[in-house]
Amino acid sequence: MNYQVRKATKNDMPQVLALIQELADFEKESNAVEMTVDQLVQSGFGNQSAFQCFVADADSVILGMALVYPRFSTWVGKTIHLEDLIVTEKARGSGVGSALYKRVMQYAAKQGVKRVEWAVLDWNEPAINFYEKSGAVVMRDWDTVQMREQQLKEFLNK
Amino acid sequence: MNYQVRKATKNDMPQVLALIQELADFEKESNAVEMTVDQLVQSGFGNQSAFQCFVADADSVILGMALVYPRFSTWVGKTIHLEDLIVTEKARGSGVGSALYKRVMQYAAKQGVKRVEWAVLDWNEPAINFYEKSGAVVMRDWDTVQMREQQLKEFLNK
Repeated sequence: MNYQVRKATKNDMPQVLALIQELADFEKESNAVEMTVDQLVQSGFGNQSAFQCFVADADSVILGMALVYPRFSTWVGKTIHLEDLIVTEKARGSGVGSALYKRVMQYAAKQGVKRVEWAVLDWNEPAINFYEKSGAVVMRDWDTVQMREQQLKEFLNK
Repeated sequence: MNYQVRKATKNDMPQVLALIQELADFEKESNAVEMTVDQLVQSGFGNQSAFQCFVADADSVILGMALVYPRFSTWVGKTIHLEDLIVTEKARGSGVGSALYKRVMQYAAKQGVKRVEWAVLDWNEPAINFYEKSGAVVMRDWDTVQMREQQLKEFLNK
């Protein structure tokens, strides 16, 4: 499969959103995606962009994407968070995911950050194996906590 | 104990760093803190601040701090990440932690974000109980993955 990994442009956002939706469907969370193309464009390509996105482009068909943004560690300073790395189902096993992963690590190294961080489902052994083989550490004792909008309102109204 | 929760200033950063170090010592990770006061000041109080910090101030003694920054979810958009919430040992059990937690949630609500997110050690039952009681959800199947500087270099040199 011939593709090139490059920075995403505004014009890629419809296909990027389709990938985000594809992953949500796969996770049986179809209705959880409140994102729109406009919101992606405004958030990612304005004066203060909220993320940086990379895509694997095969003749204008986007086979995969990786989306990152800066975070801050009180121990080591600036870090990069990998929010999503998605490869469309028909392109899996063709190296697209590895190429995007490598691109993210190159970007992080260029930014001079002390680490790249992301989250993985603890039952996703193929992903965990891939990450560990690349040198990443899976911290199995750290769980994610989320306070969502509705519960946040209720908490503040107590 | 009399204290007020307020936004941190540059002048609080020495005491904020002392709290960061206190937590690292408690976690037996004393040497993991590479942060300096200068770096905190530059990162948090420049043109593009990397974080927002709140402190519990008792007559200029900082009893606790909470440090947050924006993140971006491809499903729901802008979110807030709570990186650290630290209360000095001698002030624990006096409501300082709850007051800082509430301040963070108020800040998040004002920013109009869809959620607040953070990480917790899966064996820290008192913290987990507190979070769940407040309405937050602990996602026990999501683990944190980290690619650190040295491994990142090695990965890119392969």
